[in-house]
Order: sequence, then structure tokens, then C-alpha cells
Amino acid sequence: MAEPPHQATASAPACVGNVAVGFDFLGHTILGPQDQATIRRIPDPLVRISRIRGITRDIPLAAAQNTAGAALISLRRALNLSFGFEIELNKGIPLASGMGGSAASCVAALVAANALLEEPVSPDMLYQCAFDGESLASGARNGDNIGPMLFGGLVIATPEHVIPVPVPPHLHCVLVHPDLQLETRRARRVLKDPYKLTDVVQQTINLALVLSGCYRNDASLIRSGMQDHLIEPRRAPLIPGFEEVKRAALDARALGAGISGAGPSVFAWFTSESQARTAVADMQLAFSRNGITSDAWVSRVAGPAARVIG
Amino acid sequence: MAEPPHQATASAPACVGNVAVGFDFLGHTILGPQDQATIRRIPDPLVRISRIRGITRDIPLAAAQNTAGAALISLRRALNLSFGFEIELNKGIPLASGMGGSAASCVAALVAANALLEEPVSPDMLYQCAFDGESLASGARNGDNIGPMLFGGLVIATPEHVIPVPVPPHLHCVLVHPDLQLETRRARRVLKDPYKLTDVVQQTINLALVLSGCYRNDASLIRSGMQDHLIEPRRAPLIPGFEEVKRAALDARALGAGISGAGPSVFAWFTSESQARTAVADMQLAFSRNGITSDAWVSRVAGPAARVIG
Repeated sequence: MAEPPHQATASAPACVGNVAVGFDFLGHTILGPQDQATIRRIPDPLVRISRIRGITRDIPLAAAQNTAGAALISLRRALNLSFGFEIELNKGIPLASGMGGSAASCVAALVAANALLEEPVSPDMLYQCAFDGESLASGARNGDNIGPMLFGGLVIATPEHVIPVPVPPHLHCVLVHPDLQLETRRARRVLKDPYKLTDVVQQTINLALVLSGCYRNDASLIRSGMQDHLIEPRRAPLIPGFEEVKRAALDARALGAGISGAGPSVFAWFTSESQARTAVADMQLAFSRNGITSDAWVSRVAGPAARVIG
Repeated sequence: MAEPPHQATASAPACVGNVAVGFDFLGHTILGPQDQATIRRIPDPLVRISRIRGITRDIPLAAAQNTAGAALISLRRALNLSFGFEIELNKGIPLASGMGGSAASCVAALVAANALLEEPVSPDMLYQCAFDGESLASGARNGDNIGPMLFGGLVIATPEHVIPVPVPPHLHCVLVHPDLQLETRRARRVLKDPYKLTDVVQQTINLALVLSGCYRNDASLIRSGMQDHLIEPRRAPLIPGFEEVKRAALDARALGAGISGAGPSVFAWFTSESQARTAVADMQLAFSRNGITSDAWVSRVAGPAARVIG
């Protein structure tokens, strides 16, 4: 067997978290912005971050406070490795955008580090380390970003399970990232008050419809179900222009639209790439009518997985 | 084409509603007790109930106040029929048992009446009439009993959709009906207070796991997910012995167990008929330790649909 390399670079794609009906456990990647991690094996038995480049730089360099660092600390512990890792991050996903920026660094680092092992571990094991990484760094234990990034496509991701969900072919996603900051603490606070049973029932029905639509390759069921009755009504008011952007997507024949992750990015699903490409301009226009510039991407819903790129 | 008969009898099976993770929209039939409806075409342009026999008799004879009568009133209206129906019910499913007793009469009546039409209508149309029947008689618009009864097996049933869900082969259900009355008003009242987000998230994850387990034929996912975090904690205290009965099922290797419909019946799923048959005695014993006698049935989870029997 060839000796593993001493350095590897991996990329992890941006992700649409929650997907309207799967708060905290459903997500899918998109082909668009990505984070890259270059990992070097070092003789010192520790994990250190040498450099963070790219569009986001104000991230802690202390390894344990960074999702990438914390994930590799978890990997070293789990495998009882004698050597350590040096991490260089190249951030392509804006932080606090609702596109899984911190998860992507974590997953890219794990996938690159895995390429440096004599015996690479399974994606399931990397998933557990990514979970540890996220919880070490942020206290959250949500798989809806790390799961899709590690496995690709649309994924149900719980602490114990990662379940790939088949996506009807041709389904495409528009993701629009408005140039505005959503105060995370406020985005969490609005979720605290409890939820009415009628809304919970409607949300669970919608989840059943969307999942059934995917498993049965029936876009009409997805259209019937892709509406968030729980989280969106509370968070939408925090995103100026959200209702207009969503309306623009639905007017352009979206199957559904909603907030990506904790926002402020907005996603919409379409049954074809051409529909999605037509809708992008309308959705961005709706933000700009509210004085907000934005970036946007069109991707298959069945987006890529993280992978070694060098 | 042969002229349709002037009288037909149909049966509709008992049903496990909610199935722990699909409150108000998920259900499956069982092979066990059933209601029968004998329907006669009558020249009068109305619906009347001539007789109610069987184990439950204190049911309104006024057609509009009875689910079977209300459903046939809806069918007559929808099809603009010139003739009427006379209904005779033979009740085999105890009322207020959580086994779908009122829905079964409604569905049996519709299936029998459909056999009397020159042009029988689709199950989807019967479903809408059954919905109308239930809502006319009870105010509720839940499909989790009528959907499975009309289509058979495990079904996602919303006001707009009936989606059959594939059930892994060999899956069997135990249904235990304790001889006690659950005050329906109280069973509803305990659901009123709102729900915490953490419980809602756990419930939606569990729904995703159970549905994925069914669509992917993976009983381990069903086992991971079949636990009710929303309704059961509030209703279980109303059913003496519930926790012991559930524990007995899980100790006998149930995939999961919970309250059937609004209770007091308790269901459990098993991966084989032999496991289910072993568990029945333990579950009934747990009720009897609480001084409660019970009836019990073992059936495939993929139970039968309502059908014409004569």
C-alpha cells in the first residue's frame, strides 16, 4: 500500500439547512461557494491553525474554538493518533449567512485529514467527529449541514443517523444570499416561545409530504408540503424583503421556498434548471427593491459531497 | 353492462391512528374487528338509518349525525343522485376505543353504496366523502382512520392527499384494547397547551426516521424513530397501566409502541408475527396487573382495505 501523503486539500460545499420542513435535521448541498481546508501532518501531537484566508477572516485561530480545529481534535482522540495536524483554511462561504459556513470548514478539514491516514475511516466516523467539532466549538449538535456536506445531496441527519434521501432528477435550487447581517442571538430568541399543536400538525404533515415526494419521485407532493409553519413565521420578519423574495420564487413556479439555515439566505426549489435560472433575477430584484444587494447561485438539489481536491 | 345490485354489504377494518409519530394523519388498518354496513338503494331522495346492531348501539339514528349517514349524504350531493340509501350498521369495533370505530362505519357505508352506483367512483372521491362525513358528524377533519380503511395498509392521509406508505414485509402489529372508558373531552384538553421546540424537533426527526425506514425497508430506522414526544407524554397518564403495557411490548422486542388514536388502546409493532404473538400475553398481563381486562389482536401492519363482502 502506498504511504499516505503528508498534505491534502479538500473542499466542502455550501448547504441549505432545514429545507422548510426539517428544522435541525434536513439539508442539502449546492454546487456554488465552498470552503477549502489544507491539512498537513505534523509530528507534534496537537492540532493548530496556521492561517485563515478568503472572504471571512475574523474566526478564532485557537483550534478548540474553531469547528475545523475541534473536529480534528476529535478525530485524533478517536483514533488515538500519535501525530498532529496543521490546518490552513480558505473560506469561500460567508459566515452567518445560513449557508453552513462553519460546518463546511469542519467537514473540509476532516475529509482532507482522512486522506492523510494510513487507514482512512468511514464517512459515518467522520460524521461523528464533525458532530463533536460543531458541539465543541458552538454547543450545537445539529447535523443538517455536516450530514449533507459529508454524504452529498439531500440528507436526514440526526445525532445517530445519516440517511440520504433520493431527490427527483431535474430538481434545482436557487440560493440567494442578501448582503445583510442577521443577529444570531435574535434569530434564536424568536424560536423560544412554544408552538401550537395545529402548527405542529401542519408542519409534520408537510414533512411527510416532502419526504414522500422525494422517495416516490413525485414533485407535486413536494409542492404540497414545502411550507414552514413553525420557524419561518417567526424568523421571516427579521429578514427585510423576505416575503417579496419568496413571492417572487413562487410566482416563478417554485415548488416551495424558505429560509436557508438560520438565514438570512433564501432558498427555493424548482422542477427544472431553466425555471430556476429564470427565477434568480426575480428573487434578487425583490431584495434590491428593499435596498439589499445579494449574491445568488443555481444548483441541482442533489448537490456535491465534500472531496479531496489536491 | 350488468345493472348494479340494489343492496350491498361492505366491511371496514379497525385502524391504528397516529402511529406515535403522525398525529392526525398517519394510520394503518389491522385484520381484526370490523364494522359492516348493508346499504339499500331506495327511491326516496334521502339517507336513512334503519338499524344499528352489534357491540355498540348507542349511536344516533339521525343520518346527518352519524358518520355513515353523513358520508352518504355527501356522496348523494357530490353525484347529484336521484335515489337514496338505507343503511344498516353492524358494529364490530368498540366506540371510543382509539380503533377508528366511527370512521369504519362511514367507510363501510361508502364502499357498499359505491357498489350500487351505475358508475362506481374512485377511492379518492370516496375519501373526500368520508372526510365530509366525519366533519359533518364530529367536526374533525382527520384522515388517519378513513385513509387507511379505504386504501389499506399504512397511509399518510391529509385533507388533500392519501399516500400509501410501503411497509417492510413481516412487520406485525399488536393492538390491545383495555376495557376502560377514556373521557374524550379530557383526552383532547390535555393537548391544548403549546409544545416546546425541542420536543417538536425530536418528533419531526422521529417521523422522518419511521417514514424513511418504511420507504427504505429498514426496520432499524423504524425502531430508532417510533417514539411519540408530543402526544403520548400528555395522554399516557389518562390510561392506567399504559407505561407497563408499553414496557412489556418493548421488553418483547417491539420496534416501538404507543397509544392508538386517542386511546385507550395500545399498539406495538414487531418485526415478525411470532414476536408479536409472544408479546400479546405480556401486554395483556400488564393491563390485568392494573385490574383491567382487555382484548387483543395480532395483524400484519399492512392490514386490509374495506371491501364489499356481499
